[in-house]
Amino acid sequence: MNYTQATRDDLQKELQILKNEYQSYCERGLSLDLSRGKPCMEQLDLSEGMLGCLSSREECRAQSGLDCRNYGLLDGLPEIKKLFADLLEIPTNYIMVGGNSSLNMMYDAVARGMLYGMVDSPRPWCREEKVKFLCPCPGYDRHFAICESLGIEMIPVRMLPTGPDMDAVEQYVNNDPAVKGIWCNPKYSNPDGITYSDETVRRFAALTPAAPDFRIFWDNAYAIHELEGEGDTLLDIFSACRETGREDMVFYFASTSKITFPGSGVAILAASPRNLEQIKRIFATQTIGHDKLNQLRHIRFFGNAENVRRHMAKHAAIIAPKFHRVYEILQEDLHEKGIATWTRPKGGYFISFYTLKGCATRAYNLCLSAGVTLTGVGATYPYRKDPDDSNIRLAPTFPSGADLELAMRVFTLCVRIASLEMLLA
Amino acid sequence: MNYTQATRDDLQKELQILKNEYQSYCERGLSLDLSRGKPCMEQLDLSEGMLGCLSSREECRAQSGLDCRNYGLLDGLPEIKKLFADLLEIPTNYIMVGGNSSLNMMYDAVARGMLYGMVDSPRPWCREEKVKFLCPCPGYDRHFAICESLGIEMIPVRMLPTGPDMDAVEQYVNNDPAVKGIWCNPKYSNPDGITYSDETVRRFAALTPAAPDFRIFWDNAYAIHELEGEGDTLLDIFSACRETGREDMVFYFASTSKITFPGSGVAILAASPRNLEQIKRIFATQTIGHDKLNQLRHIRFFGNAENVRRHMAKHAAIIAPKFHRVYEILQEDLHEKGIATWTRPKGGYFISFYTLKGCATRAYNLCLSAGVTLTGVGATYPYRKDPDDSNIRLAPTFPSGADLELAMRVFTLCVRIASLEMLLA
Repeated sequence: MNYTQATRDDLQKELQILKNEYQSYCERGLSLDLSRGKPCMEQLDLSEGMLGCLSSREECRAQSGLDCRNYGLLDGLPEIKKLFADLLEIPTNYIMVGGNSSLNMMYDAVARGMLYGMVDSPRPWCREEKVKFLCPCPGYDRHFAICESLGIEMIPVRMLPTGPDMDAVEQYVNNDPAVKGIWCNPKYSNPDGITYSDETVRRFAALTPAAPDFRIFWDNAYAIHELEGEGDTLLDIFSACRETGREDMVFYFASTSKITFPGSGVAILAASPRNLEQIKRIFATQTIGHDKLNQLRHIRFFGNAENVRRHMAKHAAIIAPKFHRVYEILQEDLHEKGIATWTRPKGGYFISFYTLKGCATRAYNLCLSAGVTLTGVGATYPYRKDPDDSNIRLAPTFPSGADLELAMRVFTLCVRIASLEMLLA
Repeated sequence: MNYTQATRDDLQKELQILKNEYQSYCERGLSLDLSRGKPCMEQLDLSEGMLGCLSSREECRAQSGLDCRNYGLLDGLPEIKKLFADLLEIPTNYIMVGGNSSLNMMYDAVARGMLYGMVDSPRPWCREEKVKFLCPCPGYDRHFAICESLGIEMIPVRMLPTGPDMDAVEQYVNNDPAVKGIWCNPKYSNPDGITYSDETVRRFAALTPAAPDFRIFWDNAYAIHELEGEGDTLLDIFSACRETGREDMVFYFASTSKITFPGSGVAILAASPRNLEQIKRIFATQTIGHDKLNQLRHIRFFGNAENVRRHMAKHAAIIAPKFHRVYEILQEDLHEKGIATWTRPKGGYFISFYTLKGCATRAYNLCLSAGVTLTGVGATYPYRKDPDDSNIRLAPTFPSGADLELAMRVFTLCVRIASLEMLLA
């Protein structure tokens, strides 16, 4: 039955049946979670060998002979820079290595803008009357939280199948000097799973910002996180910017959080030598250096980029079936009901689900009452406000197969109920 | 011969002899370093057992059952909080755990002041016309570098044998609302090795700052780093402040950098619950959490605070003889020459050496030309300016016994030459 074309009577009957079904789920006292993009235990087990790969002092020496147990080496081991450079196909000398969190490197990059400004800033951003960031959305809630925390005004920009709406991006960036940044998650975007088209990347590189210190925050969190076959290809932003002479516009982030251990990975920032020079100078007042033993563990465990790619295929073998099960359930329960659409990305961690306008919050609350936690509705939008009350981010990786099945059945049921209630209202 | 009482003729003869000796050192092509407070290899070897103590997935679970490999737990494992609480005798619920660097936590604390202000701030510090910090000196160069980087004006305060000159501290803090902070290294201060007296700590607790958001940056870097016997006792700043009702005034820092591995330790910040609530709220936008596996390694390796203390005794057994050898050489080469004084701390990492006024830079340069690197003269003062050109920080822990001996002989020689040159000028 297509709900949007059914009679009121049929809808009411259907709603009653579904509500009974819902009641029985509620009585089971479920506690299931589809909210965050967390790897599951089996994925973490893939890196078990990294735990014990440094066990004696002799193993703590880097290629150069450096004793990695001691202080020093502000911007990370050359070996780990090379590993990231090979993986991401970006120049080694653009890379500085951080701690366990690329989010922390992003926060610091924005905070540095506020406190010091960029190399081209007339003044620190905190001395500007207003600072604005463009926020392609739906997007990553933690990007938006950084802006909100630091008092940066967020301007939503629509996501298209090719990436952010570049007409809007150009309009804002090229004309408003208060626009200092844009958040990008260019491959398998969170949550839509969109990979920016070559043309989108080229249009980014061709921006002529009104602000001399405008920066693209290029969070390539899912750079090698394919789910199906070869996956998508993302044009290299640095190469594109080299052609337009605007390399300084890019801050590039990546990490091994979803490659090895989410709590104990290694993060990097990549930027032009001119940017890095400024960043390292400031960074030198912030710390003596990050955990080199953990960098070394990654090097020892992987050896080279090819082995990282092999390792990622093992991740895919664990989580791709979970994504497929979700598609099957969505198809079984919601196909041709006319009340929902969803994405089917070739990689990344999320399925982006769209209800009829105005139904997401109700579906979310129904799930919550039945013991199924979803990503908060609105989380994928600046200020947590989804103008359509429609987007729900599904994160299928963490739950077991059985839990995922159950959670998804509850979810599709709640979406159906919320939709019927709205259609009948 | 006491240089300050000898005849010009005698001094000239002595200088010629010493210059010949210096020449022969220069010809040896030495490369020795007394500049940084780095543990030596033998000290790092003490923690070798920590490297391999997590090698299987089962070992990655915290007491609560939490899988430490995955995301989460913003402020650190309860077990590691308890370990620090027991060691430092401060409340567990005052502690939040960071990454590998207490310096990073200090930088972040000051940066938060600039960007957000403290709980009691009328506005973020970056919106103030001027922000000033008191800098007891000689002090730690990296504290001063944070202020300089963030554009905070540094006001030098004399160090006395009891700690900072509290008359001056009270005068500034209680009267100037632009004074927002003071850097303290309260036990075995860097570089003088002074432990603040009980009265000093009580006077800190009794401050009535003109700024509502004044903070004491209490960097207890050498809290349990004794060199001789029981060592010094430092009054607990939180207890003292509890009596005066001013606990919010304190930001307390510590780390295991000089307990386990300097590059891979665990750092903490301790503060009143009211401060922590604000800090954690901001911190939650900065990262998902620090490296819990490394926290767990510390817990597994030590078990409890008593074992940490036993471990510190092993450190002392390695480095105390190096300190003693330095005292012997200083005594042999400089005793009763009237040209130098030095400290003899019961713990910490440094010996603070004072030349005649105006001789430190020359002695430093002579050392450098002979291949012995010292901490930069002036580094222990704000803006790298030692008004007396007199203080040199000696860091005897890192070099081998033979290197230390050689470096110290060169050093005392250079001090004698610099002194003679000045007396003859």
